[in-house]
Amino acid sequence: MNPIEYADAPAAVRAVYDDIKKTRNVPDVNNFWKYLARDPATLKRTWESIKEIMAPGALDPLTKEMIYLAVSVTNGCPYCIASHSAAARKAGMSEAMFGEVTAVTGMANETNRLANGYRVPIDPAFQT
Amino acid sequence: MNPIEYADAPAAVRAVYDDIKKTRNVPDVNNFWKYLARDPATLKRTWESIKEIMAPGALDPLTKEMIYLAVSVTNGCPYCIASHSAAARKAGMSEAMFGEVTAVTGMANETNRLANGYRVPIDPAFQT
Amino acid sequence: MNPIEYADAPAAVRAVYDDIKKTRNVPDVNNFWKYLARDPATLKRTWESIKEIMAPGALDPLTKEMIYLAVSVTNGCPYCIASHSAAARKAGMSEAMFGEVTAVTGMANETNRLANGYRVPIDPAFQT
Amino acid sequence: MNPIEYADAPAAVRAVYDDIKKTRNVPDVNNFWKYLARDPATLKRTWESIKEIMAPGALDPLTKEMIYLAVSVTNGCPYCIASHSAAARKAGMSEAMFGEVTAVTGMANETNRLANGYRVPIDPAFQT
Amino acid sequence: MNPIEYADAPAAVRAVYDDIKKTRNVPDVNNFWKYLARDPATLKRTWESIKEIMAPGALDPLTKEMIYLAVSVTNGCPYCIASHSAAARKAGMSEAMFGEVTAVTGMANETNRLANGYRVPIDPAFQT
Amino acid sequence: MNPIEYADAPAAVRAVYDDIKKTRNVPDVNNFWKYLARDPATLKRTWESIKEIMAPGALDPLTKEMIYLAVSVTNGCPYCIASHSAAARKAGMSEAMFGEVTAVTGMANETNRLANGYRVPIDPAFQT
Repeated sequence: MNPIEYADAPAAVRAVYDDIKKTRNVPDVNNFWKYLARDPATLKRTWESIKEIMAPGALDPLTKEMIYLAVSVTNGCPYCIASHSAAARKAGMSEAMFGEVTAVTGMANETNRLANGYRVPIDPAFQT
Repeated sequence: MNPIEYADAPAAVRAVYDDIKKTRNVPDVNNFWKYLARDPATLKRTWESIKEIMAPGALDPLTKEMIYLAVSVTNGCPYCIASHSAAARKAGMSEAMFGEVTAVTGMANETNRLANGYRVPIDPAFQT
Repeated sequence: MNPIEYADAPAAVRAVYDDIKKTRNVPDVNNFWKYLARDPATLKRTWESIKEIMAPGALDPLTKEMIYLAVSVTNGCPYCIASHSAAARKAGMSEAMFGEVTAVTGMANETNRLANGYRVPIDPAFQT
Repeated sequence: MNPIEYADAPAAVRAVYDDIKKTRNVPDVNNFWKYLARDPATLKRTWESIKEIMAPGALDPLTKEMIYLAVSVTNGCPYCIASHSAAARKAGMSEAMFGEVTAVTGMANETNRLANGYRVPIDPAFQT
Repeated sequence: MNPIEYADAPAAVRAVYDDIKKTRNVPDVNNFWKYLARDPATLKRTWESIKEIMAPGALDPLTKEMIYLAVSVTNGCPYCIASHSAAARKAGMSEAMFGEVTAVTGMANETNRLANGYRVPIDPAFQT
Repeated sequence: MNPIEYADAPAAVRAVYDDIKKTRNVPDVNNFWKYLARDPATLKRTWESIKEIMAPGALDPLTKEMIYLAVSVTNGCPYCIASHSAAARKAGMSEAMFGEVTAVTGMANETNRLANGYRVPIDPAFQT
């Protein structure tokens, strides 16, 4: 499988690349998009969803990127960990914040299994 | 397996329950701790770790609870989703914030698999 | 979906049920087998594989059941956690052993994510 | 750990290698089998199970390989993604089919988490 | 959390419900959508993505539903397993097909871990 | 991200490194600790937890290491699989034991999904 570079991309792909570059203010798109471009419908849909979800809303972009990183670390996706570490740092994640995101992620993974192993029933107060 | 209530708990367990109640300002501990209490060493270690990790630091408690929730949703732990939804709301998560945490979590789980499926190599810029 | 009880089972299914009952010295098979029986080929293949894998070998049956439980807890499979907790106890797992299996399982899930998050490269000594 | 090549393999391992080569019409077995061969019982059992499961039945081999790929992508197993991408293509998966398998896999991973996060109760119509 | 019924839904939510009902030819939407409706933007985006992805293309709807089910089973999402079992049956999945989808899913989950445990390097032939 | 070597480590980090080296009787700590050292609080807490959990108790260190390996293989963490394979071998895991740990891990991952797919209800006998 080969990435699709801008120069070789059909118009529909170029339009997505252009929007990514403009929205993120970057000179080129990263590999994720260049590989996804082999399926232009998935490229377009994924970009539009990410653009909508990651825009500032009730949560700021930094918080969203740290949540994205925590999920990627939990799933063990090397590409995603690398790219969202970079994105979170760009959005303002300090070294101390990174340490805390990772510590919380590790702890949640541990207590998720303690709750599974002890077969803890949900408290009535948490049912609502 | 039965939960260990305060009245039936040995001194070492009561000491942990007391600290949880004081730290969180709650009248009783939730089921997670009452089941973990069957192994007092794990109860004590887990509480001390959570207390340290979830304290305000470079990240505020609300952000930490939302990350905890995102991991629990990714792992599909019903008890943890219920208890950390409640904890995040108590820490200030609005309905709109909940919607965005869940949307980011869902999207990250999707793109983690797109990156896996397309076998995307890590960009040199993300290697450092 | 309904379980297939012995009285209603075709001969090929009965033969597997009989072997499970004899091998495990139990009066009836548990639900897992009664549901799998809807696909007799999968029932037979799964039972033969489990019978071979869980037999005493370089590892004793108790150790194997505790590993089975640790994996089921990691994956969050409620049926498997319940049935393999019971199987491990029957094979000799004490309350203290259960506590330690669960503690190790929780810790491994935590450090797996710390290693992911910090993107730790494999030491040359571990490459071989 | 080293792979076991045909020339160095004991008779029991060679017999499995021969059956794989004949069944799949390939000149050599791939690395998965050469590493598994260190435990001849696991090699034999795994091959016999795969041979039975992946044979044409109610589903054709291409559909089975695409399901295998979707699971491997979900679990993030790099070896399995590489080998089952190749196997699915050999069985007839076109570039467009690959795009759709991956898109469905990504979407399912997303909505699995949306259902978890919103704690959606199962509709009575789906209980049966 | 409560589901949002049609009678109580705002216009933007009703429009999505109407499109789901028309597209799928059902009298009411299932719980997944009624819970997602609390975040109308996520409801709309998720439905539009699913509608596009699950439409007939290089793969037929039955194959897509079986892949969706295999992923849901791998992730252990009870709601998703229930709803996509029903959807796959409605699209034509027979009892025998269900047995094979589940058998392939189970086997893939097993060999994914055998490949991990034996640390099998990717064959040069699978690198391309 | 760079590892922190002993010579460059602050006193608090050196104290942990010293305790690891003494407890494990090794000349240097492995990469996991050198990367974690960027967050001294996480380094200290993680080491103290692991030291307590992995000490001989109701289970011997070899059994604990094999459970650790089974979890790491299930999660697909390459660093953890490499380091805990080495640790388990050092604690006495033979080639035959490794084969059985991996076979049980693979089988558990398979039957976890069969139980999910067939939606097997928990037997009353396993409820207690």
